Amino acid sequence: MSGFAKELISRKEAIEYVSRALDFPWALKTRSVPLEDAMGKRSGLNLLSPVEYPPFTRSTRDGYALRSADVAGASDSAPVFLRIIGEVPMGEWTEKRVGEGECVLVHTGGMIPEQADSVVMLEDTVQAGTWLEVRKALQSGENLVFRGEEIGQKDLLLKAGDLVGDRNVGLLATLGICTVEVYDLKIGILSTGDEIVPAETPSLPPGKIRDANAWFLEFLLARHGFSAKRLGIVPDIRDRLAESVRKAMEENDIVVLSGGSSVSVRDFCSEIMENLPSPGLLVRGINMSPGKPALIAGCLENRRLVLGLPGHPLSCSVVAVTVLLPLLYRLAGLESPLKNAEAVLVADLFGKAGVEEFIPAILSNGEVLPIPGKSGYVSVLKDANALVRLAENEETRRKGEKVEVLQW
Amino acid sequence: MSGFAKELISRKEAIEYVSRALDFPWALKTRSVPLEDAMGKRSGLNLLSPVEYPPFTRSTRDGYALRSADVAGASDSAPVFLRIIGEVPMGEWTEKRVGEGECVLVHTGGMIPEQADSVVMLEDTVQAGTWLEVRKALQSGENLVFRGEEIGQKDLLLKAGDLVGDRNVGLLATLGICTVEVYDLKIGILSTGDEIVPAETPSLPPGKIRDANAWFLEFLLARHGFSAKRLGIVPDIRDRLAESVRKAMEENDIVVLSGGSSVSVRDFCSEIMENLPSPGLLVRGINMSPGKPALIAGCLENRRLVLGLPGHPLSCSVVAVTVLLPLLYRLAGLESPLKNAEAVLVADLFGKAGVEEFIPAILSNGEVLPIPGKSGYVSVLKDANALVRLAENEETRRKGEKVEVLQW
Repeated sequence: MSGFAKELISRKEAIEYVSRALDFPWALKTRSVPLEDAMGKRSGLNLLSPVEYPPFTRSTRDGYALRSADVAGASDSAPVFLRIIGEVPMGEWTEKRVGEGECVLVHTGGMIPEQADSVVMLEDTVQAGTWLEVRKALQSGENLVFRGEEIGQKDLLLKAGDLVGDRNVGLLATLGICTVEVYDLKIGILSTGDEIVPAETPSLPPGKIRDANAWFLEFLLARHGFSAKRLGIVPDIRDRLAESVRKAMEENDIVVLSGGSSVSVRDFCSEIMENLPSPGLLVRGINMSPGKPALIAGCLENRRLVLGLPGHPLSCSVVAVTVLLPLLYRLAGLESPLKNAEAVLVADLFGKAGVEEFIPAILSNGEVLPIPGKSGYVSVLKDANALVRLAENEETRRKGEKVEVLQW
Repeated sequence: MSGFAKELISRKEAIEYVSRALDFPWALKTRSVPLEDAMGKRSGLNLLSPVEYPPFTRSTRDGYALRSADVAGASDSAPVFLRIIGEVPMGEWTEKRVGEGECVLVHTGGMIPEQADSVVMLEDTVQAGTWLEVRKALQSGENLVFRGEEIGQKDLLLKAGDLVGDRNVGLLATLGICTVEVYDLKIGILSTGDEIVPAETPSLPPGKIRDANAWFLEFLLARHGFSAKRLGIVPDIRDRLAESVRKAMEENDIVVLSGGSSVSVRDFCSEIMENLPSPGLLVRGINMSPGKPALIAGCLENRRLVLGLPGHPLSCSVVAVTVLLPLLYRLAGLESPLKNAEAVLVADLFGKAGVEEFIPAILSNGEVLPIPGKSGYVSVLKDANALVRLAENEETRRKGEKVEVLQW
């Protein structure tokens, strides 16, 4: 414990310090994934449109393509008559041209012939043999989308870091983009601690606890578009731990240590991080509660980031949300995902001065209810959708007062 | 077009009518998936804890387990002395009992011996050989979590319909729950239309458009915890379409038709739905814009729901969000995912009376900016995070007025 008592810096200082020391943002490698596997992942580059869209001028209605100048002033009382020179069948290309006083039958989504600049809807016309009675004036561009109107060649489709999802997948599919370059940032999660056994352990041996933090971290990072891999559990033996960290750092850009909460694990982790290549251990404890024992280290030359998260599930969650996520976003050159707001406390909240505190809470309609829980609890976050943040200079806050809340 | 001019009902009526006619909610089948594949899926049942947690009384600190009664009144000026009778090694079971005036060294997360009811932190003690000087009084339960304190056997872990994610995965892992029963609701997406070719088509044939709606629908439904499968593109030929719908209905609980926008596709779809077993076609057109041509049908006996969505990408998106999603949630017995709020318009919005309108928009800090776009556009939703809803009786709204916005 004593190793963490001094040198505590604030959380914001820690994030700034690490970001500068490791020269964030890093240029991230990318890998190709098929569009069907890209959901929830982040584009690795600024993706420009290879083509313009639509590829041809298209009708947005069933009707007749015509020249708007021909029907200027047309109305129910003063219809204009045009000659129907044919039809563009659905899904077919046409070489037709619409001359003065002519029109062509077109379908919704179908191609518009050259020289036509608008489409009159069926219901505003009467057909009589090869003649069309048009009872409405039209603007140029009415009821059609011009070739290239929506998307120009080289228009920006996705910025580097954008999440691929339902809001942009249709656009990618439309343009025939069926593989996406996404971040190839490798994150490994190492669970530590003699008391930790795999979640799959059917019958819990006496004195043991199943690994929960690694699963939480994997799912949290995945929700934020970062793929992480659980690398298993390492016992609380210095050489084994050092070897596992070394191997994890060979195969991953980021290594997150988690799970164990004993002093010896923390001491071993701290020692291993101190021995990393420059700059090595950067942060040994953060002035926050829960989460004080957090460790952060990195190597500048081969671009590695290593975090040691506290073992208590709640502490681990709070540090993951308020330190790991902001660091990852900084590393990738993205804005922090933490959304700040103010909300009114619906119950007293007991805080202490001198430390930044985070309390799980339920935020709803501008009101926030802190959820009581001990740091060893695993289920507090199940119901919480926010953290109340009490700054270092804030103590106990009363029901009815406004407090800062974070969502992520 | 004319087939849709009469019999238009409002969107809310359509949802109510279909929900009643098809006897929603349905009892959904479930399937087992490994925990690592359960992220973003919905629990198929009310999941109860098989065990209590923690499985033994655990320390949340490094310190000494003791009886709080023994240190009542202890302070810096009046320390109490206890006999150290041993240590509980990390991750090990102990048969030790802490007698009166005794204490045992324990580690964070480690087991607490019988008869101890609290843990004094190391920093509040001084050790002198086998004697411990305790300088602080403790409450019963201080710095430990009692066996079963957090979760009792049969406590509700997940309600049917809850999404599995980072907020609850740690809890499941802790309790050794490594497979989850999730909804086994099969949704098939059939794309229709002669102008539609697969997104994978490298070079677009003249007059053709790549399929975007099926991708959008798949990703949208996945984000809401429903797995959908793209079943491919059917040409605009009545018998081929009827056969594809029949086959899709054999293999899926829900069939969503989408993509084509020609009159003949709509007519064929409507005819096919009319010929379904009871109750068959339920909704032929909804009084909304965009989205008027939407079709909804179902079979009560073998529990099938069929939707025909308009082909325009924006219309398809709006109906998917405001009709398909609410229906799916009703079908599963869940509350609608549409979140209503009020926001101030930052630009004039031109609406028309007599129809419920939805306009893509950017909502930020209580202000909402409508995004101009035609129904044929595919990229409007890329930037939109909300829809402005203008009720049937609302016309043009001015900058500075409050309007209703939906998010999903």
